[in-house]
Amino acid sequence: MNRRMVAFFVGKVLRIESMLMVLPLIVSMLFRESAWMYVAVAAVFTFVTGSLLSATKPKNMSFYTREGIMSVALSWILMSVFGAIPLWHCAPHVGFTDALFETISGFTTTGASILTEVESLPKGILFWRSFTHWVGGMGILVFMLAVLPEASGENIYLMRAESPGPSVGKLLPKVKSTAKILYIIYIAITLSEIIALFLTGMSVYEASVISFGTVGTGGFAIRNSGCFGYDPVQQYVITFFMLVCGANFNVYFLIVAKKFRQAFRSEEVLSYLAIYATAVVCVAINIRNVFGSVGEVIRQSLFNVASVMTTTGFATADFDKWPDFSRVMLLIVMFIGGCAGSTAGGIKVSRIIIGSKTIRKELQYLVHPRSVKILKFEGKAIEHTVLRGINVYFLTYFLVFAVSILLVALDGKDFATTVTSVIATFNNIGPGLEMVGPCGNYSEFSAFAKYVLMFDMLAGRLELFPMLLLFMPMTWRRQK
Amino acid sequence: MNRRMVAFFVGKVLRIESMLMVLPLIVSMLFRESAWMYVAVAAVFTFVTGSLLSATKPKNMSFYTREGIMSVALSWILMSVFGAIPLWHCAPHVGFTDALFETISGFTTTGASILTEVESLPKGILFWRSFTHWVGGMGILVFMLAVLPEASGENIYLMRAESPGPSVGKLLPKVKSTAKILYIIYIAITLSEIIALFLTGMSVYEASVISFGTVGTGGFAIRNSGCFGYDPVQQYVITFFMLVCGANFNVYFLIVAKKFRQAFRSEEVLSYLAIYATAVVCVAINIRNVFGSVGEVIRQSLFNVASVMTTTGFATADFDKWPDFSRVMLLIVMFIGGCAGSTAGGIKVSRIIIGSKTIRKELQYLVHPRSVKILKFEGKAIEHTVLRGINVYFLTYFLVFAVSILLVALDGKDFATTVTSVIATFNNIGPGLEMVGPCGNYSEFSAFAKYVLMFDMLAGRLELFPMLLLFMPMTWRRQK
Repeated sequence: MNRRMVAFFVGKVLRIESMLMVLPLIVSMLFRESAWMYVAVAAVFTFVTGSLLSATKPKNMSFYTREGIMSVALSWILMSVFGAIPLWHCAPHVGFTDALFETISGFTTTGASILTEVESLPKGILFWRSFTHWVGGMGILVFMLAVLPEASGENIYLMRAESPGPSVGKLLPKVKSTAKILYIIYIAITLSEIIALFLTGMSVYEASVISFGTVGTGGFAIRNSGCFGYDPVQQYVITFFMLVCGANFNVYFLIVAKKFRQAFRSEEVLSYLAIYATAVVCVAINIRNVFGSVGEVIRQSLFNVASVMTTTGFATADFDKWPDFSRVMLLIVMFIGGCAGSTAGGIKVSRIIIGSKTIRKELQYLVHPRSVKILKFEGKAIEHTVLRGINVYFLTYFLVFAVSILLVALDGKDFATTVTSVIATFNNIGPGLEMVGPCGNYSEFSAFAKYVLMFDMLAGRLELFPMLLLFMPMTWRRQK
Repeated sequence: MNRRMVAFFVGKVLRIESMLMVLPLIVSMLFRESAWMYVAVAAVFTFVTGSLLSATKPKNMSFYTREGIMSVALSWILMSVFGAIPLWHCAPHVGFTDALFETISGFTTTGASILTEVESLPKGILFWRSFTHWVGGMGILVFMLAVLPEASGENIYLMRAESPGPSVGKLLPKVKSTAKILYIIYIAITLSEIIALFLTGMSVYEASVISFGTVGTGGFAIRNSGCFGYDPVQQYVITFFMLVCGANFNVYFLIVAKKFRQAFRSEEVLSYLAIYATAVVCVAINIRNVFGSVGEVIRQSLFNVASVMTTTGFATADFDKWPDFSRVMLLIVMFIGGCAGSTAGGIKVSRIIIGSKTIRKELQYLVHPRSVKILKFEGKAIEHTVLRGINVYFLTYFLVFAVSILLVALDGKDFATTVTSVIATFNNIGPGLEMVGPCGNYSEFSAFAKYVLMFDMLAGRLELFPMLLLFMPMTWRRQK
């Protein structure tokens, strides 16, 4: 591996992170909190480290898949380490492991929290905590590609490694333009939600923070009661934007480009909405007696299924107390997750579609062995490499899943807690069931279990392979 | 589909089943039980139905994959329906659904029971109940192939559909000879265990019944206390034979053929033993304080890991009360299961090996995109169709798994019960955790949940596709 080149890249990422820290710094100062100091220290420290790493351009600029993947993995780990500084320093009862857990949970848009109480924390710190969702949602490296001058061929490797889904569609021939248009759409959606929530009566601060959590499909709230206390209109606004951000962003690009027919025929988005609608109906029927009115049953189903399927993790009800069928239904949509090319986690709807088509094809093959059928997705034949990638993804997914459960089980928590804590972190959702349910949190786990879950959050966000390669000696071998 | 031909085949299977019922009939008569009547009625009824179905040889003898798969699926369903008659009639409190559940559980070598109490049942009925394990272990169609005169090309389709594992190795060029040699090995192992248990002081009856449960990796016991009451030597004998029957029978064929080097180098069997040893060590360390002596810790670990990994399901301890790490470890080896070409269930060790190699290859490909590596298993390159089959298998496995859990969750049992009842039936193990733990049973489920679990047992035993094709209209379409 070309280590110098990777270090150079990670340095650039840290420098960008330090700039992003200026925003919470301003918020902290506006609210006249002493916590601005911690943010300032973190920003300076991050900037200096980043500058040292990227001070000299390496002579050997060779940069391939391996370097791209490692740059992404290490960037995400280091930006979490540096991003954890403000919370670690300002909350005396939060150790470094817990601060790191919270920050990884932020950047990976998981929203799993080790904090038992958030309202006492400074507003600047809470702002940064939710802002990590926003940064992590679209990806900091994609952001870097959008703002830095176009370099040589390395960019597509970076983008591929950081973007969710089985294949990265270059929307425009140039990576830089693709990254830019994605961020423009992303910012537009965020601003729309902030304005919408502001119009319902939220403060600009709260509207921003909740929007970061929604648009990044993260799910950190800034009240101890989560989203339980928001009024129905606000909950509907949040539901709408969660759904918007769980859909494939290519669709918005197509809408901007006025290709409406293509946009509204997206196989993935239509399936995504169909799965969502089915789950909502099933859950609503199942919980019809849990709430007092039909209106509330419908609103709670719409909100919580959207929250869990888009892997946001906001909650307006303790769905851990719902009947078992609904709990399992929610677990299943947790696994499915949002669309590829969205900010959501999970296995992704496109993989589920292609997986189902593979099964159907096999069954047809058994009945008619001589029939030749070509698998199609979004109207195009699926390439062999994409199919292979999806199959390997599924295998790896369940392997990591099984090993994680085994390691977390060493903590000796109950079965549902152990299993769903892994499901909820690995799919970047946040709340699971029992101890880690919507009204619980992750503080009770041992440090070891927390590190396993941190790994799972990163592996889930970066789609497995970068985090696995990190532990393979062959990755680290010097280039011949 | 050539329906006449399938009916003809199913008829032949039922006729063989009726002959097999003569054995419990004799046992019943030897013990002078009035229950012999029920068995006799069942045998006659099965024989008549079988004879009617296979009375005339169909004119159109065309028989391909589709017909083979459907013959297997329908044979297993019908032989369970007819096999349920004795239990249904002799136990007044057992309804038809429960009797069918018990019989499917028997033939599929699951060993999940709806009976809360077994010692009051006639010995002939218990003999038949355990004998279904033995018949189902190697497969009744394989038996038919071994005893009936060699027909045309249809046989390999039948054998492929009924034999566990990703690919059927024809040990000998002729299917009939392969089936014969498999049954000879099978009978030899069974007799060895009966003799071994008899030498430890068991009655011939009890030794036979327990041996059927072990060799078929089924797990029905004939005491209310399961295997808790057997002395250590007897438990070690059972442990040994469980392990023997979870290994690939090809190895025994190679040993018989004096190809020792090949036999002791079997990649699958070595991995199987390595996984077993690892799990035993982990569990033993974890439960070191559960039992009084080191000897007992070791014996309990050896027995229960073997029982669960070979998907037998005998228990000498209530492992549901063990620490969470051990419970999860047992769940993981439940998923892995035994070797292909054994009587065990689960995903099978060979699929796990090939799956892991696929993952490793993908990681290597990411680091060295230009390297070309060929996947090998047992020293041979893996064919593309086998690889594809395994990938589709995994996809289908997790799909059926998720849907089953959702349907069983409608019963509203606790999370661990719901999830592990599906794991334990789908992998043909028997006991799960909580309500369906080694000291519990399946009687509390609703009829609907029981039918879902019956489907899972059959789907697990027949490796998914036959049971899925049963529900697809295209399978049933008449041949053009």
